[in-house]
Amino acid sequence: MSLIVQKYGGTSVGSIEKIRNVADRVLASHRSGHQMVVVLSAMSGQTDRLIALAREMTDDPDPRELDVLMSTGEQVSVALFAMAVKSMGHDACSLLGFQAAIHTDHLYGRARIHDINVDRIRRELERNRVVAVAGFQGLDEYGDITTLGRGGSDTTAVALAAALHADMCEIFTDVDGVYTTDPNVCPKARKMDVISYDEMLEMASLGAKVLEIRSVEFAKKFNVPIHVRSTFTQERGTMVVAETKDMEKVMVSGVAYNKNEARVTIKRVPDQPGIASRIFEPVFTSGIIVDMIVQNTSEDGLTDLTFTVAKPDFYKTMKLVSETAKKIGAEKVLGDEDIAKVSIIGVGMRNHAGVAKKMFEILARENINIMMISTSEIKVSCVIEEKYTELAVRVLHEAFGLDQAPGEEG
Amino acid sequence: MSLIVQKYGGTSVGSIEKIRNVADRVLASHRSGHQMVVVLSAMSGQTDRLIALAREMTDDPDPRELDVLMSTGEQVSVALFAMAVKSMGHDACSLLGFQAAIHTDHLYGRARIHDINVDRIRRELERNRVVAVAGFQGLDEYGDITTLGRGGSDTTAVALAAALHADMCEIFTDVDGVYTTDPNVCPKARKMDVISYDEMLEMASLGAKVLEIRSVEFAKKFNVPIHVRSTFTQERGTMVVAETKDMEKVMVSGVAYNKNEARVTIKRVPDQPGIASRIFEPVFTSGIIVDMIVQNTSEDGLTDLTFTVAKPDFYKTMKLVSETAKKIGAEKVLGDEDIAKVSIIGVGMRNHAGVAKKMFEILARENINIMMISTSEIKVSCVIEEKYTELAVRVLHEAFGLDQAPGEEG
Repeated sequence: MSLIVQKYGGTSVGSIEKIRNVADRVLASHRSGHQMVVVLSAMSGQTDRLIALAREMTDDPDPRELDVLMSTGEQVSVALFAMAVKSMGHDACSLLGFQAAIHTDHLYGRARIHDINVDRIRRELERNRVVAVAGFQGLDEYGDITTLGRGGSDTTAVALAAALHADMCEIFTDVDGVYTTDPNVCPKARKMDVISYDEMLEMASLGAKVLEIRSVEFAKKFNVPIHVRSTFTQERGTMVVAETKDMEKVMVSGVAYNKNEARVTIKRVPDQPGIASRIFEPVFTSGIIVDMIVQNTSEDGLTDLTFTVAKPDFYKTMKLVSETAKKIGAEKVLGDEDIAKVSIIGVGMRNHAGVAKKMFEILARENINIMMISTSEIKVSCVIEEKYTELAVRVLHEAFGLDQAPGEEG
Repeated sequence: MSLIVQKYGGTSVGSIEKIRNVADRVLASHRSGHQMVVVLSAMSGQTDRLIALAREMTDDPDPRELDVLMSTGEQVSVALFAMAVKSMGHDACSLLGFQAAIHTDHLYGRARIHDINVDRIRRELERNRVVAVAGFQGLDEYGDITTLGRGGSDTTAVALAAALHADMCEIFTDVDGVYTTDPNVCPKARKMDVISYDEMLEMASLGAKVLEIRSVEFAKKFNVPIHVRSTFTQERGTMVVAETKDMEKVMVSGVAYNKNEARVTIKRVPDQPGIASRIFEPVFTSGIIVDMIVQNTSEDGLTDLTFTVAKPDFYKTMKLVSETAKKIGAEKVLGDEDIAKVSIIGVGMRNHAGVAKKMFEILARENINIMMISTSEIKVSCVIEEKYTELAVRVLHEAFGLDQAPGEEG
């Protein structure tokens, strides 16, 4: 007998009928002899409804009270789900954050899980009950309700799987797995059978949003195998697991892109120690997250500094940097919103030389100019003109052999 | 500085605007120097919405899970209320049943409060916070959510007032107090300034529904003064307090009626020991509540037994009693749904002779036939034909001097 943690997202529990289907699905696993812990999100639409209520009350709702309000969404889901299971003749029990003893810090709206006391859950499982745990919520040291932020139910599921030493954490969602790239951009995108935690982290942070990134970090830390799959089919999805030797045979596992960044360039900055920190200090202080940073080698004591930020932060960043530029005597500040970041990801890069070079050649062959380059151990990212995004994704996908399943002849 | 517990019902918090008004009202008291504990019901309509969700899931929702579901209604109210208070520049804090340590038995849907640990509430009050407590909900010994049943927020408020030794418990509702009788039936009905717990219990159980009956029992037990008043005016309402000598000067305080009962008569029952228990055993076993029971003196070894039940239980009762009647050799069973119970209530009856006689005379003067009579220390109830209800209420109201305020000349 194994212990399985399953998580169902908002669209999977978006109606009474859908909750009933989830109950059917959970009971199928239960009948196969597995102990079942099920984490549920709020029914789709409910989170938005609750936020709208809060905004109607005040522009700036108190964070503690917002969490009290928001956590009712998952509470409704688990109660209805447990009712469904019981009406089907099986025993079940819903547990809220405080009952499942999910202890967090007290950063309302984006709390982090410290620890979980699984005694109560174990007791309910021993009574042969299906245990439904409200996702997204926890309890801080003062006994107050916290929430983990958007996508937090993924983290709840993985954290529970880790704490319970579960055999598997299955994340049910409205897509059927993790793809080699966005199928909307590249029709030849393939569902991956398996991906490493590190690759998944790069994929997620680069815009291929299937799993909440913190849940992947959690899974990596505690080595929890995750199975990402569709609620609406019986198909096998994608396993997210620790890296194996086998994975390294493939040079590139996926191609990601992100159109939500903008580029800021400061021309002819006096190249002195401490200049970068002077430029970025006001940006960081404003809570703006900077992604890529590139600084050219200085020739004449003046250098160009380029970096990217999320598009919504672009105007604010331009304002802040222009002020600094004036103070430090830089020539001018240029901005560009029409950019995209295209990345290739794969643990195989560690053992394959020339992956970056091949990427540059492929892009050059299509006359796509590379504006910025950034590399890590398992990825290479290039900033290009936005209009070339789809073309770049497709040619990289083909050139790195992702159009064919591993083992197929190209 | 005094401590005041206020309770606002569903219509009082039925919209964001109304919750804001409640916050204004609470802060006015707070500014006068009072410590404020505010108990809120679910926004009107929400309880019905949640019940509808549960019924859509299954005809017979699991009671434990139903309580988990239902308790979200009050959770939403207290979170929004606390946001409102904070947006007005004052400190506030919502507490759910588990946080306010409202301990109950585990009778889901109709739990009774065992005790309340007020440490957390006191701590929040000492920090000069307005404390908003979710009504209607508690926690049982297993750490599971319970609800107290319809009207349970009144009980939450009174129980908190008792546990906190509050100076006052104010129940805000959509009526402005307790009336001498139903103003819809008798235009001369007057709002009472004061009523004793016992009178209120008789009024409530007889159909004048302003306060949940258990909350009055609680208030009586712990001697909590209750002020029933309107959310929508600043008028003084009705004080519900322990009996005083002064109250006894008035013979009759109010006239109540109940059209929701039906009458069952078993004719010519063999008058033997144990016969009543044989008749009522199947009725009680079915959970049917019997109100008045009248048995005539036996003359020829055969007696008539008459009792009343709530109208929705009438057909089931007739079926059960008819079966028993056959077995015990009674002549026949008669039923009548077109009846009403009219009652006069007043602690003054204890010291005034002839109150019942006067009631019978007044009804006789109008040619209203009395079918059943039942008396207690502080009330007299008569069952009459339903069509005479309004007439009976009006003539009793006038004849016992209730048309005029105490002290006015009649």
